Amino acid sequence: MSAEHFRVGLLGHGTVGSAFAALLHERADEIERFNGRRPVISGVLTRTRGSFEEILAQADLLVELMGGIEPARAYLLAAMHAGKDVVSANKQLLSQHGEELFDTARERSVRLRFEAAVAGVVPVVRVLEESLSATPIERIHGIVNGTTNFILTEMARGASYQEALADAQRRGFAEADPSDDVSGRDAAAKMAILARLAFGTPVHLDEVRYEGIEHLRGDDLEYARELGLGLKLIGTAERRDGGLSVRVHPAFLYAGHPLASVSGPFNAVTVESEAITEITISGPGAGGRQTASAVLGDVVSVMTGGARPPAPPLSLPLIEDVQSAFYLHLEMADRPGVLAAVTRVLGDQGVSIKSVVQRGLGENARLVMVTHPVLESHLRAAVEQLRGLEFVRSEPRTIRVIEEEFV
Amino acid sequence: MSAEHFRVGLLGHGTVGSAFAALLHERADEIERFNGRRPVISGVLTRTRGSFEEILAQADLLVELMGGIEPARAYLLAAMHAGKDVVSANKQLLSQHGEELFDTARERSVRLRFEAAVAGVVPVVRVLEESLSATPIERIHGIVNGTTNFILTEMARGASYQEALADAQRRGFAEADPSDDVSGRDAAAKMAILARLAFGTPVHLDEVRYEGIEHLRGDDLEYARELGLGLKLIGTAERRDGGLSVRVHPAFLYAGHPLASVSGPFNAVTVESEAITEITISGPGAGGRQTASAVLGDVVSVMTGGARPPAPPLSLPLIEDVQSAFYLHLEMADRPGVLAAVTRVLGDQGVSIKSVVQRGLGENARLVMVTHPVLESHLRAAVEQLRGLEFVRSEPRTIRVIEEEFV
Repeated sequence: MSAEHFRVGLLGHGTVGSAFAALLHERADEIERFNGRRPVISGVLTRTRGSFEEILAQADLLVELMGGIEPARAYLLAAMHAGKDVVSANKQLLSQHGEELFDTARERSVRLRFEAAVAGVVPVVRVLEESLSATPIERIHGIVNGTTNFILTEMARGASYQEALADAQRRGFAEADPSDDVSGRDAAAKMAILARLAFGTPVHLDEVRYEGIEHLRGDDLEYARELGLGLKLIGTAERRDGGLSVRVHPAFLYAGHPLASVSGPFNAVTVESEAITEITISGPGAGGRQTASAVLGDVVSVMTGGARPPAPPLSLPLIEDVQSAFYLHLEMADRPGVLAAVTRVLGDQGVSIKSVVQRGLGENARLVMVTHPVLESHLRAAVEQLRGLEFVRSEPRTIRVIEEEFV
Repeated sequence: MSAEHFRVGLLGHGTVGSAFAALLHERADEIERFNGRRPVISGVLTRTRGSFEEILAQADLLVELMGGIEPARAYLLAAMHAGKDVVSANKQLLSQHGEELFDTARERSVRLRFEAAVAGVVPVVRVLEESLSATPIERIHGIVNGTTNFILTEMARGASYQEALADAQRRGFAEADPSDDVSGRDAAAKMAILARLAFGTPVHLDEVRYEGIEHLRGDDLEYARELGLGLKLIGTAERRDGGLSVRVHPAFLYAGHPLASVSGPFNAVTVESEAITEITISGPGAGGRQTASAVLGDVVSVMTGGARPPAPPLSLPLIEDVQSAFYLHLEMADRPGVLAAVTRVLGDQGVSIKSVVQRGLGENARLVMVTHPVLESHLRAAVEQLRGLEFVRSEPRTIRVIEEEFV
């Protein structure tokens, strides 16, 4: 191997791994022209072939595209201990063992890059680490799961949840077992990683509260449309009350919000800060070639010396109970006094109503309200009481509402 | 000055310069925590105070926020010849003397960073240089002038051009002399810089064809609304016929285009590539503190060794005559045979019509057409002939139409 080669050891050769190897081969001339060195794949570890030790010995950098916790974790740690830079697209690993990996990278003074782990081709990791490294970030809102955004887009066009999910599966946007996506867990892993980057505080996947889209109904999207709102699965990481709140849940967005117009299997992240107001970055959420492109960008950034070891962690306390505005949907018997009873319960819990629409449904009436921002615990307590009222005919439904705060 | 200080010499202390000095001071603790060294302003050159040579001698890096060509050019060249890294927000200078600066940076192995010169706080320079450095880019569309985007947003809401411009001036979004913005020249300078980054080919401001917004009328925006289109001032840099086309002009965008929903004094850039599909980045276009934040991001990237000298240039030929779809607006006498005469002229020039709407206006009729993509020279030849027809009652009006090409 010539001295001008930059040797990349590749762990994993599935969809993304093989797309990465192909893209690296295609782009080697151009990368050499810019960087002086030519990247080459010096070894590949698959499920059935290759020796990790040999690949490690022959590589300047390891790219981990195996997924899962083990042996990916052991391999990345061993590589960093051997003084090698590493690139990974493994969100499970980073959201559950991130600090161990970051600590090792810092101790061994090696680079650990993971752009592809967070938002597909959307370069939010680099923007947070570099462009905004001098900016105190207040809040991140993200659509970080393309599968659920596709499903919600289809539901907004009239499809049922089941139809939209089946369509996503047919087009390859959703797995046969979609539970990681539709439960919000995939988005929660990505928000844990983004929160660490933006706020310096370690956040484990288990510390992220998440709620998925399985319980949403066509009704909810119809109301959204009528009210001029978009309904999205939103990940949030924000400073609140001297701490940090990290969570994923469906949310109504006002039409002017930069994420409201993000449709289909796309990802987008909005970063808010007093100094910059806000930046939004959007692009396709996944796809082997797109992910491979993000991985190759990381490889090039290591080649050019552009990345640095992660900073030691801060520790902001994680805040569980935060204020949001809520949409609240009740079906109840249509008779005198019920609205007064509902508003009394809400008032007792400090829930103040911003707008209300009541509609007759034969013997029943449907009440749709949007509240002013209220602590989630208070809203939940109110819902608990509403659930017990004899005239309430169905399970009360709540969805958060994100109002524009900047611009 | 202690060895742990990173000394920043500041040239220029106007709005951006003073915002930068304040932001650096605010963020110095945090930057030191991440990078080990503390940035300090070691000298400031204003119109009336300071010596360039002394400031240079006492600085690890120079930040140029003076604007204009000279003496900014001479100072940046002198600093790089002295082996100092430099950061600049000077789009005039970079779009007119970029190659001289890039060559000097490369020869002296110093870093030249200029994120704030292009799209305000939108980190498109870094994304092109780093995240996408391994990606063959096909096209960039950008809204890179916040002033004109604000004016067009107001016109879309019913304001006249003059009202919207006066409003922009009142709010500080437009200068007393707005000609650089409204003529498209400011956007052209930024597109020249972006084209150099994305395609490696030197592009001088004088080589960018640009057209402004002064000639747009309320009518055009009304049609846009009726047709479900947005009307924006769009900068384009794209590979075409083995060459490169760089231009700025008003354009209609289909509602699904990622730039169609960008409103107010915002900037946004969409980067298209087969490997990534597309990425869009948006944020506020200007403001002293926002620009200062982009400059500070550049300073931090130099501190962390994250930037590299520019690559030597390629040279794609610049293509002048490119295909676009066009909107064509004619007022003509309302009598039999005129539509046939118009379509004959268009057909003779190879202009094929995609949609047409004719409306009576008393004795006259208004004809609004959207063409299929056609070489601009052919469209211009057809317009020249239409202008000569005796039944055409007013100057034919043309605006480009950008169709969704991906997604």
